[in-house]
Amino acid sequence: MRPIDSLVNALSAARVVTDPDVIDSYARDRTFVEPGKPLGVVLATSRDDVVTTMRWASEHRVPVVPRGSGTGLAGGAVAGDGSIVLSLAKMTAIREISPADEIAVVEPGVITADLDRAAREHGLMYAPDPSSYEISTIGGNLATNAGGLRCVKYGVTRDSALGLEVVLADGRVLDTGRRTMKGVTGYDLTGLFVGSEGTLGVITSATVRLRRAPAVPPATFAAEFGSLRDAGAAVAAIMAAGCQPSLMELLDRTTLQAIDDWRNIGLESTTQAMLIGQSDASDGQAVAERMQRICEDNGASFVAVSSTPAEAEELIGIRRLAYGAKERLGACLVEDVCVPRSALPAMISAIEEAAARHDVLIGTVAHAGDGNLHPVFIFDHGTVEPPANVWAAADEVFTTALRLGGTLTGEHGVGTLKRRWLALEAGPVASEVQRGIKAVFDPLDILNPGKAI
Amino acid sequence: MRPIDSLVNALSAARVVTDPDVIDSYARDRTFVEPGKPLGVVLATSRDDVVTTMRWASEHRVPVVPRGSGTGLAGGAVAGDGSIVLSLAKMTAIREISPADEIAVVEPGVITADLDRAAREHGLMYAPDPSSYEISTIGGNLATNAGGLRCVKYGVTRDSALGLEVVLADGRVLDTGRRTMKGVTGYDLTGLFVGSEGTLGVITSATVRLRRAPAVPPATFAAEFGSLRDAGAAVAAIMAAGCQPSLMELLDRTTLQAIDDWRNIGLESTTQAMLIGQSDASDGQAVAERMQRICEDNGASFVAVSSTPAEAEELIGIRRLAYGAKERLGACLVEDVCVPRSALPAMISAIEEAAARHDVLIGTVAHAGDGNLHPVFIFDHGTVEPPANVWAAADEVFTTALRLGGTLTGEHGVGTLKRRWLALEAGPVASEVQRGIKAVFDPLDILNPGKAI
Repeated sequence: MRPIDSLVNALSAARVVTDPDVIDSYARDRTFVEPGKPLGVVLATSRDDVVTTMRWASEHRVPVVPRGSGTGLAGGAVAGDGSIVLSLAKMTAIREISPADEIAVVEPGVITADLDRAAREHGLMYAPDPSSYEISTIGGNLATNAGGLRCVKYGVTRDSALGLEVVLADGRVLDTGRRTMKGVTGYDLTGLFVGSEGTLGVITSATVRLRRAPAVPPATFAAEFGSLRDAGAAVAAIMAAGCQPSLMELLDRTTLQAIDDWRNIGLESTTQAMLIGQSDASDGQAVAERMQRICEDNGASFVAVSSTPAEAEELIGIRRLAYGAKERLGACLVEDVCVPRSALPAMISAIEEAAARHDVLIGTVAHAGDGNLHPVFIFDHGTVEPPANVWAAADEVFTTALRLGGTLTGEHGVGTLKRRWLALEAGPVASEVQRGIKAVFDPLDILNPGKAI
Repeated sequence: MRPIDSLVNALSAARVVTDPDVIDSYARDRTFVEPGKPLGVVLATSRDDVVTTMRWASEHRVPVVPRGSGTGLAGGAVAGDGSIVLSLAKMTAIREISPADEIAVVEPGVITADLDRAAREHGLMYAPDPSSYEISTIGGNLATNAGGLRCVKYGVTRDSALGLEVVLADGRVLDTGRRTMKGVTGYDLTGLFVGSEGTLGVITSATVRLRRAPAVPPATFAAEFGSLRDAGAAVAAIMAAGCQPSLMELLDRTTLQAIDDWRNIGLESTTQAMLIGQSDASDGQAVAERMQRICEDNGASFVAVSSTPAEAEELIGIRRLAYGAKERLGACLVEDVCVPRSALPAMISAIEEAAARHDVLIGTVAHAGDGNLHPVFIFDHGTVEPPANVWAAADEVFTTALRLGGTLTGEHGVGTLKRRWLALEAGPVASEVQRGIKAVFDPLDILNPGKAI
């Protein structure tokens, strides 16, 4: 009898995958990180399945790697030898949407965009919108504290999480938070689980905040600049003017060139950067025109403002092509540093210098309003692991971000990829405290070991 | 030699109060809770003073009760026998305001409104505004995760806290969070300290988020209703219409009567509730007029909309009189439940029923947009402790709030006053986990013991 047989017996064969090829497909995320050989995959359909799995894992001291749809970019859901992959992707019920209270109660496998669409039927929206929102799950978003395009106005996943149901390492069920907008009883356990990358417990239900969907379609602008410096100055001026954009994305020349090569957007040879912004305020069209003027005042060579939703979609569509265009060029290490907004131009310069010094192609997209940059390091297709010069350039980017008062990761998480830099940011006291917290929740270290902290 | 003499030697006599009368004034907050007899009061002027105090306290196993200006309403800063009161009120430096990054770095003793005023010199604001903001400190706001009037739009103190410097129980210094708007390295320690009522560490510096101050003065309305039910319906309709008020306060008849008796606001005999709301949007005047129409559609007998900042101040001024007016009537137990917004009418009815059943005068003010109610239980001046019927009525209010899906405290904290009800909300697993976290940070249980959890 294999060790996993007792788990199969406890759950039923239909819930446990033991075919090695299928297991392998559940052991990966969107990074190049090679998984080990897990014992099996649990396809949980209920909280009880999760409880059974965790009790079994505690008893047998087997590591458990929780996952949603595996869209992570930091290796947080990559599973190691001898572990159990615990997939929450089949727990897809939207249990409740309350328009009066502006909340929803959802299972962790709900696709982010599905929740947003369900909310919009009631005139509401689910604000957090990671770029992967058509394929990522709410559970994964919570585990990584995912950001997105709209978070410049509406905040990150944490800001929409009100309460959680969590299965602890030993199978106990913990309820955190509440259904109310405010509440201060006890410590903030909800916040502690959000972004903890499955290392403290397995989220089996979440009460999230919805917001009123804007009454009018958002108004959008796109501005081209002859220098990244000018584009950075425009971002600062737009924010300082109190425009409160609901989206503010910056694309560099390498990214624009890749998009143009693929889909011909008529890129001018002098364009070094593009800024795409949106306002979803009730006077959004006026705000978009104000942002247009600020771009022109800061040296934009061309600014288009949408006058119809179709035109707006076309402008945003350029941003949506960014990753696909770069994936055509090679394998991609998608990075994720965040700096104080004023350090955006310095950070972009540092990325360009690192690219030149280490002879690496880097294309950068930034959630510019938040100072959150995604430099994408491009290397040869078919290469399993990024070559040494990519890591050298990445190291320079990370240490520069920290030197500028920033952080190693704005929204993707630490996972396995960032752990070797973690001590530079956290320091010894924070690391010790975090290990202490981990031990409270997971004394046997079976929950996603080797990730996050 | 008294035990405290070694602390006096370590800090200097100027920093340690040992006069019993002065100590007593530092051992209380704004509740009626009677303190014990602390050994002394440390008037910290720097992080080093706090480190010295905590090292001494750990060595001698002396409880430490941190405090700001003592405006708390839950007994969280009330000090017991043999403890040291650690006042942060003299650490009042605003170390940095960065308009470009929209952040400030402040010491814990900074008065909340002083930070807001300093920010406004740069076109920014500090959004959290507890009613006590002219006398409360940022450190106290962080320790209780204070709310306020504007949090219906801008969130609570947690939503403005980016990073903290904390002295741990053993004197180690921990830095949490960051200067960036987003960041997901490690567990959310910042969130864990916010609202922890000084039981996990002593905050000695905070990096907080500022926001652009609205360009135009807010537009304000006040509406009178013949029933609380109509007022509740108007709140729901205003929120559902996406008006995004920056303030939405509800006052009941008892409160209005107390204000009218004091300052004569011309209260009509038929008025049972007043709603005061504000919009600080760029099209705020139009939004206020829209809110006016919604109130009229929901049965308001009279609605005034301000057309000048002076008129707006006059309307808000009515709200500001609420506590003062009730304090004239007797000693006050200021309570603080929060329910899902749709349960606001049911909660108000339950408060009225509890008042009638137990023959207690209760006047209620609500941050109605958040479902956060402050029923104020009024009893005889000079009574040291609320009489049994007040506690019986309060018990009914608390248990009803929980039954309606709400919480024991929306923004004041648990302190000592709410601890006897805490298990009803938290449940055994959450309580156990919270005790585990407490032990990680404070294994000797010397930090504000007997509070919060």
